[in-house]
Amino acid sequence: MTKTAESFWIWYPGDREIWLGNIFNNRRTERGAMFPPFWKQDSHWQTVSFRKEVTLQKPETIRIFADGSYNFALDGQLQFGQPASFVVPEGRHQIDIKVHNMAAPPSLLIESGKEGSSLNTGDTWLTSYEDKIWIDENGQAHGSGIWLKPGFWPGCNDANVLPSKFQLLKTVPRTAVGHTLLDQDSRQVLYDFGQETMGYIVLHNAKGIVRIYYGESEAEALDRNRCETLDVANLYVREKTYTLPESRAFRFVLVEGEADDVSMLYEYLPHDLSQSGRFECSDGLLNRIWKVGAYTMDLTTREFMMDGIKRDRWTWSGDAIQSYLMNYYLRFDCEAVRRTIRQLRGKDPVTSHVNTILDYTFYWFNSIGDYYRYTGDTGFIREMYPRMKTLMDYTLSRLSDEGLAIGQPDDWVFVDWVDFPMHKRGILCFEQMLLIRSLETMQLCATLTGDRKNYGKLAKDLKKKTDRIFWDSEAHAYLHALEPELNRQITKFPNMFAILYGQASEEQCLEILDHVMLNPDVPAINTPYMRFYELAALCQMGLQDKVLPEIKAYWGGMLLEGATSFWEKYNPSKDDNQSEDTIPPSPRAPHLEMYGRPYGKSLCHAWGASPVYLLGRYYLGVQPLQPGYGSADCRQREPAWEARPNLGGLEWMRGDVPTPYGKIHIEVDAYTLTVSAPTGIGRGIVYYKNQQAEVRSGQHITLQL
Amino acid sequence: MTKTAESFWIWYPGDREIWLGNIFNNRRTERGAMFPPFWKQDSHWQTVSFRKEVTLQKPETIRIFADGSYNFALDGQLQFGQPASFVVPEGRHQIDIKVHNMAAPPSLLIESGKEGSSLNTGDTWLTSYEDKIWIDENGQAHGSGIWLKPGFWPGCNDANVLPSKFQLLKTVPRTAVGHTLLDQDSRQVLYDFGQETMGYIVLHNAKGIVRIYYGESEAEALDRNRCETLDVANLYVREKTYTLPESRAFRFVLVEGEADDVSMLYEYLPHDLSQSGRFECSDGLLNRIWKVGAYTMDLTTREFMMDGIKRDRWTWSGDAIQSYLMNYYLRFDCEAVRRTIRQLRGKDPVTSHVNTILDYTFYWFNSIGDYYRYTGDTGFIREMYPRMKTLMDYTLSRLSDEGLAIGQPDDWVFVDWVDFPMHKRGILCFEQMLLIRSLETMQLCATLTGDRKNYGKLAKDLKKKTDRIFWDSEAHAYLHALEPELNRQITKFPNMFAILYGQASEEQCLEILDHVMLNPDVPAINTPYMRFYELAALCQMGLQDKVLPEIKAYWGGMLLEGATSFWEKYNPSKDDNQSEDTIPPSPRAPHLEMYGRPYGKSLCHAWGASPVYLLGRYYLGVQPLQPGYGSADCRQREPAWEARPNLGGLEWMRGDVPTPYGKIHIEVDAYTLTVSAPTGIGRGIVYYKNQQAEVRSGQHITLQL
Repeated sequence: MTKTAESFWIWYPGDREIWLGNIFNNRRTERGAMFPPFWKQDSHWQTVSFRKEVTLQKPETIRIFADGSYNFALDGQLQFGQPASFVVPEGRHQIDIKVHNMAAPPSLLIESGKEGSSLNTGDTWLTSYEDKIWIDENGQAHGSGIWLKPGFWPGCNDANVLPSKFQLLKTVPRTAVGHTLLDQDSRQVLYDFGQETMGYIVLHNAKGIVRIYYGESEAEALDRNRCETLDVANLYVREKTYTLPESRAFRFVLVEGEADDVSMLYEYLPHDLSQSGRFECSDGLLNRIWKVGAYTMDLTTREFMMDGIKRDRWTWSGDAIQSYLMNYYLRFDCEAVRRTIRQLRGKDPVTSHVNTILDYTFYWFNSIGDYYRYTGDTGFIREMYPRMKTLMDYTLSRLSDEGLAIGQPDDWVFVDWVDFPMHKRGILCFEQMLLIRSLETMQLCATLTGDRKNYGKLAKDLKKKTDRIFWDSEAHAYLHALEPELNRQITKFPNMFAILYGQASEEQCLEILDHVMLNPDVPAINTPYMRFYELAALCQMGLQDKVLPEIKAYWGGMLLEGATSFWEKYNPSKDDNQSEDTIPPSPRAPHLEMYGRPYGKSLCHAWGASPVYLLGRYYLGVQPLQPGYGSADCRQREPAWEARPNLGGLEWMRGDVPTPYGKIHIEVDAYTLTVSAPTGIGRGIVYYKNQQAEVRSGQHITLQL
Repeated sequence: MTKTAESFWIWYPGDREIWLGNIFNNRRTERGAMFPPFWKQDSHWQTVSFRKEVTLQKPETIRIFADGSYNFALDGQLQFGQPASFVVPEGRHQIDIKVHNMAAPPSLLIESGKEGSSLNTGDTWLTSYEDKIWIDENGQAHGSGIWLKPGFWPGCNDANVLPSKFQLLKTVPRTAVGHTLLDQDSRQVLYDFGQETMGYIVLHNAKGIVRIYYGESEAEALDRNRCETLDVANLYVREKTYTLPESRAFRFVLVEGEADDVSMLYEYLPHDLSQSGRFECSDGLLNRIWKVGAYTMDLTTREFMMDGIKRDRWTWSGDAIQSYLMNYYLRFDCEAVRRTIRQLRGKDPVTSHVNTILDYTFYWFNSIGDYYRYTGDTGFIREMYPRMKTLMDYTLSRLSDEGLAIGQPDDWVFVDWVDFPMHKRGILCFEQMLLIRSLETMQLCATLTGDRKNYGKLAKDLKKKTDRIFWDSEAHAYLHALEPELNRQITKFPNMFAILYGQASEEQCLEILDHVMLNPDVPAINTPYMRFYELAALCQMGLQDKVLPEIKAYWGGMLLEGATSFWEKYNPSKDDNQSEDTIPPSPRAPHLEMYGRPYGKSLCHAWGASPVYLLGRYYLGVQPLQPGYGSADCRQREPAWEARPNLGGLEWMRGDVPTPYGKIHIEVDAYTLTVSAPTGIGRGIVYYKNQQAEVRSGQHITLQL
């Protein structure tokens, strides 16, 4: 039987992500103890109905594949057993298939025969977890369930691979770059894989009890009693190769026991590198920073976008929104974004904020606005909108008496890991900025889905209240909090979001710039996480030339400390080797501890990779102005995207920014700008010094001084 | 290690029932096709935290058993790996254990050593599906989850049997009472097991393809193309005994293929028969009716109380509330009641009425009131109350504009399977009666749990509206419906509930009796389901002597048609063998069809067994007056229970009514009444003719004319 059109495994929308998320988020271990998340983890619906109404000009033979037990009804008539194939007669028909699976999301794939493809499974089918079809005393069926478009993944379409067995990740063998025999008697060997990596350790010609101690740093792998991750293999007979069952993060492994050699299977999410973002410039350090950032992103972009590959290996909404933005300038992997957004949201009822964190709920909303801006995918907005509404209902039901965002006793108010004294109690101005943006996102999505609820009004009201309470025209800054007295502390957090989210007026932005962002008396931010927004806000204000040395100093600082991927936290004041000339062979003690544990810090953390975003968004200077970079078919009066390159002091730079249509290519130096637009994209507008010009689908343009 | 006190497997409350319910409700097949429910089926929480705070006088060694992977923290300090045992030091400690299991509810059992039993798992532990325990940058833990008492089953306490493998049911071998060779060539043999039964067919010395056609009647088993249940065994080699994998309902099986003999494993839920209800009297037919009723109940009381053993094999709330009431007079299996109530409710969010049926939601509430009345178990009320509230919120959010119960477009309004013309549209008076009772039940439980919400006021308001709209003093009856015009049809449904639930005044009750209940012009009820309430209402009015011949005619009628268990529906007017002298060897065609299928009717349906309730409740006349029959310890002024025997025309009767303390024994004839009370029970009051007397814990009393 030949396929005449593609058919996909389909399931209840969001369920595969929720199910896979439970596997994903529960894999974390800490010194051999499992370490699951502390928030509600939902489940897939165990019995799902699939439906298709069709009119056939001639009979069609279909083959039915299901992940689970199933039944099949033609025009309401249940057929015997579990038919593997069926001839649907010509004419108008309704196909109803119910699939039941307690262990994994019930899924269906139908392949039509050569007669046609009308019944192939895909987004023309409908699905329900509660069809409410009951049969009366006379055998008559009545139903009133809610039917939605099913979930599916473009790559998950092989009838012979059940979706519960479908692997998103691939592996490739890699060898260590070196090893050191530490102790002959106990057969202790330290293997160095040359850089931070993730995958399965492979033991060669091993036997007996073999202990593996993992280290993101050499110090960690050597510290058998305190390293964060370890494994024990117990091989009763000698095995030529034995692959450990769990994928781990490491650069070094200390192996203790009988094994002739140790290698690994590097595990990764495949991407089409020819369609990826790229950045190159006249500054070698910046090129290295971009590459290590891109590698950090590739390591942390897996089934979902995780925070760090050693720890927590969880999906965190505040981390993920940054990964998404970096991804729009790196791999443009919209599937990974959608998977992560779905997984983070889970199901109703809402019993806590996303990841239990107030701010993380807001980032979740805002990430959907970003996704729409970069992809123009209204189908996904329609899918998520009902879950956005119930999460917003929850949010609005927990405001303060004044109608402001506040951490309730069971909420975690995160903001950032800060090194300076800062309370997180009461009503934080920072949280209002995020909530205003969330309400604006809700309004955008309400408009797209035809919901008449006026979230825009709520956003405006909250904006007014926030300005009235927190804006201090004498301090030229948004103040920190209402506790309930006004806490007049000034931090960068609310102020940089006011710039970024367009919540401050032009004049206010300039005031904030002088009195907060560039004010050395305002405490410095020491996580790449919040430096992301800090530096983006500065670039937003056109200060690329001030930001460039910051990037080189901060991320370059990590490289000088031996980083091969970027870290969860980096405080340059802890550098004790500034006087040394050489880069240490591996990051050292002062940079490894966190959470009260000597190796608690994650040395490969997605939020560490922000230069990937900053360089694409503010130096190459590309962003969509219409959702999804517009479309050549659509004759908009306004341009669909812009390239506003800013060398920020570099001699030259060139690079690619991925879009739904392929890459926008940019080359720029002090005298010439060249921009190429992929075929199909909407009309772009290009800025170079005081010139501007249009570039259309499939064209390229060169501007010269 | 010896057990010093009992410890139980514990889990998140309700989760085991939800999980087992998914297995249970998805087992149904129809001619080889799986046939799952059409309502939302929830899942267990996949990661569950268990906590215990304890002060030890000396160290205690514990052994840890978990159904799932787990971790163990002492005083917030995570321990290495998955410790199978642990020595908890003396002093004040907090034990936190997280268990993760995607396939079955995460469960925990801890056995203390001989040093003590403080840490044994049971209802002194706490559990949460979302402990919200996060760890700050300094390693400090913060948590704000909601902790509940765990779920556990008294019998599920063996460390060596994981609760996901725990079997509630037992099996015992049984042989057929006869068999007939139908066809030598195709090796067709019909086996008769003598009565309706349920279990696994066992093939002896079988080989090749063996087809099994099940029949609750002989006609069904013989009708290979239309029987409802069938199996195919495919034995590649000759097997001495081969047991079919699924438990089926049948009396007859037609076996086609190579098998020397066929027997079965009868599958049943064990009960302590010495503590069960019993009824015996001077009327042989009535004794047979009680026995067949008890057997029908035993067949349908399994992991949960199901509707029918052939069909639907599901939990249905309207069916279950009757099973519970019969059970209080038969096995007093409170565990089975709790399991079924939990399973029927599932989890939030509420997306439909229970089983999608408006009335079934109301029965669910009311069954909890009944449960409390018979058991006095406030712990269970506290467990269920949060889920009662959210279901009542859902109910109240779907009332009509007038604040009355109405079927919304996605609700099924069931009432009964009726043979006479009756619309179920608009606002049915019947549904108001059930909702008033539900609101009263909510008020009872609010009071018990200390919730101050005034459901009693809502009940009173609804009662007033219902009387104003539906009571017709000229018709002396509650009218049928508001559509929105008043539908003046008179049916027994709302009127009998008005009597039963005490919603009609004494005077109204008498009017209803004359003008509705005993009025031959009002259409007869033809399901045992609603005859339950009809006959209970008549008994409530003291008409036991009128009801007795009804029971004998209706249930006796089924026996005369060859019933060996009681049916889903029975319309005596379909009897065509009234003239014959002999009982047919098996129920025949006019009584087998339903739902447009020739063998669609269930011949073993729990709601068929109502004489078990009627005879205990209204003839032996025993009921609790205080929750759970009071207690001897508790000095109530009011009596805790009553026995008000009513011979209803019988010469004599004797029997037992189970209570939480053991059986109340009754013997009565026209001259003497003897009542024995079990030890521990509260003070009872006994009525005999015009006499009354008290009987106390462990005493017996004899009253004579």
